Amino acid sequence: MPLEDYRVPPGQPVQLSRWATDDDDGLSKKQGQALLPDLEERLADLQERLYAEGRQALLIVLQARDAGGKDGTVKRVIGAFNPNGVQISNFKVPTEEERAHDFLWRIHARVPRLGMIGVFNRSHYEDVLVPRVHGLIDPPTAERRLEHIRAFESLLTDSGTRIVKFYLHISPEEQRRRLQARLDDPSKHWKFNPGDLEERAHWDDYTAAYEAMLTTSAASAPWYVIPADRKWFRNLLVSQLLIQTLEEMNPQYPAPTFDPANVRVE
Amino acid sequence: MPLEDYRVPPGQPVQLSRWATDDDDGLSKKQGQALLPDLEERLADLQERLYAEGRQALLIVLQARDAGGKDGTVKRVIGAFNPNGVQISNFKVPTEEERAHDFLWRIHARVPRLGMIGVFNRSHYEDVLVPRVHGLIDPPTAERRLEHIRAFESLLTDSGTRIVKFYLHISPEEQRRRLQARLDDPSKHWKFNPGDLEERAHWDDYTAAYEAMLTTSAASAPWYVIPADRKWFRNLLVSQLLIQTLEEMNPQYPAPTFDPANVRVE
Repeated sequence: MPLEDYRVPPGQPVQLSRWATDDDDGLSKKQGQALLPDLEERLADLQERLYAEGRQALLIVLQARDAGGKDGTVKRVIGAFNPNGVQISNFKVPTEEERAHDFLWRIHARVPRLGMIGVFNRSHYEDVLVPRVHGLIDPPTAERRLEHIRAFESLLTDSGTRIVKFYLHISPEEQRRRLQARLDDPSKHWKFNPGDLEERAHWDDYTAAYEAMLTTSAASAPWYVIPADRKWFRNLLVSQLLIQTLEEMNPQYPAPTFDPANVRVE
Repeated sequence: MPLEDYRVPPGQPVQLSRWATDDDDGLSKKQGQALLPDLEERLADLQERLYAEGRQALLIVLQARDAGGKDGTVKRVIGAFNPNGVQISNFKVPTEEERAHDFLWRIHARVPRLGMIGVFNRSHYEDVLVPRVHGLIDPPTAERRLEHIRAFESLLTDSGTRIVKFYLHISPEEQRRRLQARLDDPSKHWKFNPGDLEERAHWDDYTAAYEAMLTTSAASAPWYVIPADRKWFRNLLVSQLLIQTLEEMNPQYPAPTFDPANVRVE
């Protein structure tokens, strides 16, 4: 289906059930994977232009349930970029100093500078997910936070930063398989966090929280729902959407400040 | 030749002319490139263990003359790691605030946390190169700075950070070719900085400054001189040395804090 169909329309309620988690857009895994090398080359080329131009930044926000594929997306899709031009931020449980500030303080410190691609592996949206599900903030507070997020993102977009947000959408059954695989394979034990099972028990509450989060989709900072049960399809779709986004940004090599014909290297 | 021969012996004067810039260790380009995929896989595996273990950090310092290949090394070698576990720092001309602090202040803020690989694309060593060549600091000041660097690096190694430093070694002729290529190819104009020609005119002064820098080679923070006229050989050698370093660090998956056999995902 067209890329726009994965985009969350701004200004309306969101129902995650509208998107299948196991969508493959009619492709086989082999067909999908065969498309990737060309996309990776295109991503690398667009990023070099963005870096050379130095007048725009791209901020990529990744959110997902546990085992939803955030790390895999960074490894497989973001890995196509030259690491020199990428800044990845993993937001964990806030430190004491971070908690002593507003919830956007630590986020603001990590936004990408012009020319760079910033990746938020988890983000400011965590602050309307976990606390909401566990009743640590009341609904009006959650709504206020979403308002602050909208204002913050609009500050960034007004200053040359394009924002694109991906929710990696998996089914409860796929999460079960992935968590179980972490238990069954000793080299994956370190990825398993027993706390993930507690969060899993709140599946529907999280669904509601994610749906509220997705209402912050805006023309200049859209959310995309990425069917993510199939890792290859997730990688394909995120790559395609990043290419589309970067092509719209249309970064250009800057004009030289010297006349190349008049310079010789002795 | 054995990997140790590229290592700068600690505690003695250094002469860069000891190493050829166009060394290929008797390999053809084709042979060298054929070795890379296995090395990349090994690098990715070792890094995952380092990240999972979370008890050691690796700091990679890259220094070179202009067009020496720092960015290419990041793209080709560091690109083999999962970007999630890598933090790259590009140190440019210091800002006003940075200049208002000691020269290691901004550096210290960017050292990798445990589990991470930090890459310094240029580093604290810039402060004993450019100012020294341009007479902005006198020789005793340069020597004091080297002492401060030794103490600083020993602080890091005492706290679980392994340091490995690469000087990418190119010939004047190879630099000429690369700078000229940036002039001849419009898509590379943005990489060309006319100031590089001025620095090039100070070739021998820089050689002396690099030789002084290399005297900070230490058992726990060695410098390696990487023959870098051939990009494929540079990538091969840096990859091999990083593997050797990570193997010496010998990171291990941590023991689980739970009994995997007693946990089931419902």
